[in-house]
Amino acid sequence: MDTRTAVIARRRLFSSAHLYDQKKFSREENLATFGRCHTPHGHGHNYVLEIFVEGRIDERTKMVIDLTDLDSILLTVTDPLDHQHLNFDVAEFKEKVPTTENIALYLREKVRIELQTRHPSLKLKRLRLFETDDLWVEIE
Amino acid sequence: MDTRTAVIARRRLFSSAHLYDQKKFSREENLATFGRCHTPHGHGHNYVLEIFVEGRIDERTKMVIDLTDLDSILLTVTDPLDHQHLNFDVAEFKEKVPTTENIALYLREKVRIELQTRHPSLKLKRLRLFETDDLWVEIE
Amino acid sequence: MDTRTAVIARRRLFSSAHLYDQKKFSREENLATFGRCHTPHGHGHNYVLEIFVEGRIDERTKMVIDLTDLDSILLTVTDPLDHQHLNFDVAEFKEKVPTTENIALYLREKVRIELQTRHPSLKLKRLRLFETDDLWVEIE
Amino acid sequence: MDTRTAVIARRRLFSSAHLYDQKKFSREENLATFGRCHTPHGHGHNYVLEIFVEGRIDERTKMVIDLTDLDSILLTVTDPLDHQHLNFDVAEFKEKVPTTENIALYLREKVRIELQTRHPSLKLKRLRLFETDDLWVEIE
Amino acid sequence: MDTRTAVIARRRLFSSAHLYDQKKFSREENLATFGRCHTPHGHGHNYVLEIFVEGRIDERTKMVIDLTDLDSILLTVTDPLDHQHLNFDVAEFKEKVPTTENIALYLREKVRIELQTRHPSLKLKRLRLFETDDLWVEIE
Amino acid sequence: MDTRTAVIARRRLFSSAHLYDQKKFSREENLATFGRCHTPHGHGHNYVLEIFVEGRIDERTKMVIDLTDLDSILLTVTDPLDHQHLNFDVAEFKEKVPTTENIALYLREKVRIELQTRHPSLKLKRLRLFETDDLWVEIE
Repeated sequence: MDTRTAVIARRRLFSSAHLYDQKKFSREENLATFGRCHTPHGHGHNYVLEIFVEGRIDERTKMVIDLTDLDSILLTVTDPLDHQHLNFDVAEFKEKVPTTENIALYLREKVRIELQTRHPSLKLKRLRLFETDDLWVEIE
Repeated sequence: MDTRTAVIARRRLFSSAHLYDQKKFSREENLATFGRCHTPHGHGHNYVLEIFVEGRIDERTKMVIDLTDLDSILLTVTDPLDHQHLNFDVAEFKEKVPTTENIALYLREKVRIELQTRHPSLKLKRLRLFETDDLWVEIE
Repeated sequence: MDTRTAVIARRRLFSSAHLYDQKKFSREENLATFGRCHTPHGHGHNYVLEIFVEGRIDERTKMVIDLTDLDSILLTVTDPLDHQHLNFDVAEFKEKVPTTENIALYLREKVRIELQTRHPSLKLKRLRLFETDDLWVEIE
Repeated sequence: MDTRTAVIARRRLFSSAHLYDQKKFSREENLATFGRCHTPHGHGHNYVLEIFVEGRIDERTKMVIDLTDLDSILLTVTDPLDHQHLNFDVAEFKEKVPTTENIALYLREKVRIELQTRHPSLKLKRLRLFETDDLWVEIE
Repeated sequence: MDTRTAVIARRRLFSSAHLYDQKKFSREENLATFGRCHTPHGHGHNYVLEIFVEGRIDERTKMVIDLTDLDSILLTVTDPLDHQHLNFDVAEFKEKVPTTENIALYLREKVRIELQTRHPSLKLKRLRLFETDDLWVEIE
Repeated sequence: MDTRTAVIARRRLFSSAHLYDQKKFSREENLATFGRCHTPHGHGHNYVLEIFVEGRIDERTKMVIDLTDLDSILLTVTDPLDHQHLNFDVAEFKEKVPTTENIALYLREKVRIELQTRHPSLKLKRLRLFETDDLWVEIE
């Protein structure tokens, strides 16, 4: 990492319901694979999204990115999931199983689009999605 | 508090979905009252239940209650809610609105029954139910 | 506590600077009493305010108080302190020393006024003000 | 609580080993009662002690107690336990079983002596001893 | 990292006693090197192990590894240490000093064996072992 | 990473005041860029510094670095900032804007000097500076 490069990281909580149901599977396969996560109406979590944005420290502001911008990106990407049932209310997960891995991939794509549009010189270095404090997925 | 009396407290997480829908209300009243919590399929949380059990320190074991017993009580009362949709899967909340307050009252009743059956000399001094780290309900 | 009474608790962070300087003291007394907290420009903290609001669970909403209202009260009382230097920017602390104890008393008064105005049937049962995770003041 | 009264709370971690062995018990009773806690050499914890000290806010300092004093009390009472094996190195627990309840009673006595000596007008309102983040004992 | 690759991380607590005693050292050298950690009976900690498992997201389950498997691995590797005295009860540490670094190396080996046996396509990307919340060792 | 190499990480809190004021900017530019962080007297934070020190595990002590040394380094680098107003009391920030990015760069330089002097074979692998639990900067 270059001397004047830094990563700024920020967390945001969102609360969603989900259930695991692989359409290709029989009911038995679904239960064997997903156990308690395969129910008709689902359960839920307080997800916590962490994004790590890398870039040069701006010569004038001495920041990588303004906190207001960072929060606006986090709100833009989590708002469509917050207080929703992922399987029923979010187009992406009507077909795809909303595992933590898949939600993380979805959010990475959304964050990248926001960064590309607003701050093309900045890069999403890492994204972490916590399902609970003790279980999370990390992607680069 | 008597010298040999103590309170032992224990936490347990469970993950559920819920939604707020007061049957007596019109759709407009439901939206005005519950906002984002009034959706057809709901959202969810990692709830954390804390129970505070008060009693005399046993002369022989030097404990108020054995941890295995305490965990068994917590499992017994939270298991019917864990990985369930409170409104659709739990009889209590098919009619009652599963607000954090109502879930706490329901859990207090269940914990009291377990204590009464297993350890009639012990008392549930306090119960806390966290919806997130920053929002919780406390009842005595 | 009556069966249908509950306490709802909520946290909010605010970031302020402060310094300890008792006008009645000589410089020597100030240093002896306040040590590193007695400097000309001060230092700062991420304060966390927790308020515990007690009341009957409303028959219709099944809540003690709506979360939006609760957050509005917290914002109203912490906003005048957030991102401010308590000694120089907040009238209350131009004369009074902004110890955690004094800030807690000030906030209790402000929360009580808000509750009295908005929800006269609700009571502030407890208020906690954290200076760090390991040091806080609790008043009733 | 009087308007000018407050409780100040402070945490301190100490790391100790312990084991549960009730001398009056046979080996079978010990194992049946204490399970994995009954081993010849013991195991250990990062204990966290929280003390809640109540008193009037001093008219001159605007504090209940100075943080340096509070930390000195915590150090005085936890230092004899820190980095020790409670059963073998601490007189109190050569006979008594070092359950969390018993350690809490022991620490309450020690804190009361310190407060009585240093600040007779202050009162230990509550003491909490955490064995882990999810299990603790609270005494008054 | 490939688009469909993710890291899943999981935490588990275990409670052990340990002491630092380098057989090659004289008592003076042991005290000079290890300070309060060199006692005859030891002290203890709530250790927290975090493992970061990297692999492709399975096409059918949309997960890197099932949570039940992950927990089984963590239980398998930590159970021989949990509620034990590392120096007296665990073969590995009868000779080797159970510093956090050495325990981390030991656990990495054990986790790798479990992964190799159960999920040869998955890789242990990182392992963190916390002695307290504020002190930990990280190895790859 | 070589088999016998590990990273040891350690946290330390310090409390400082700061304000954002870019001398090159007009008042309007300062307000537009820094918002609530541009005030005459500033606000403050409980900063948490984490340093990640990488090196070979010493053959004799089985540690990368002794905890006393690690804490001494952390104290040496944070003490000049702790309970100070960064803009008025710390030479470095009389001209430079004390953004979290800039404070992190400053601390990295200071930690490197300490490591170079005391333990030239060890390397600062990563440094994280938290402004709050939910916002931090990470540099290598």
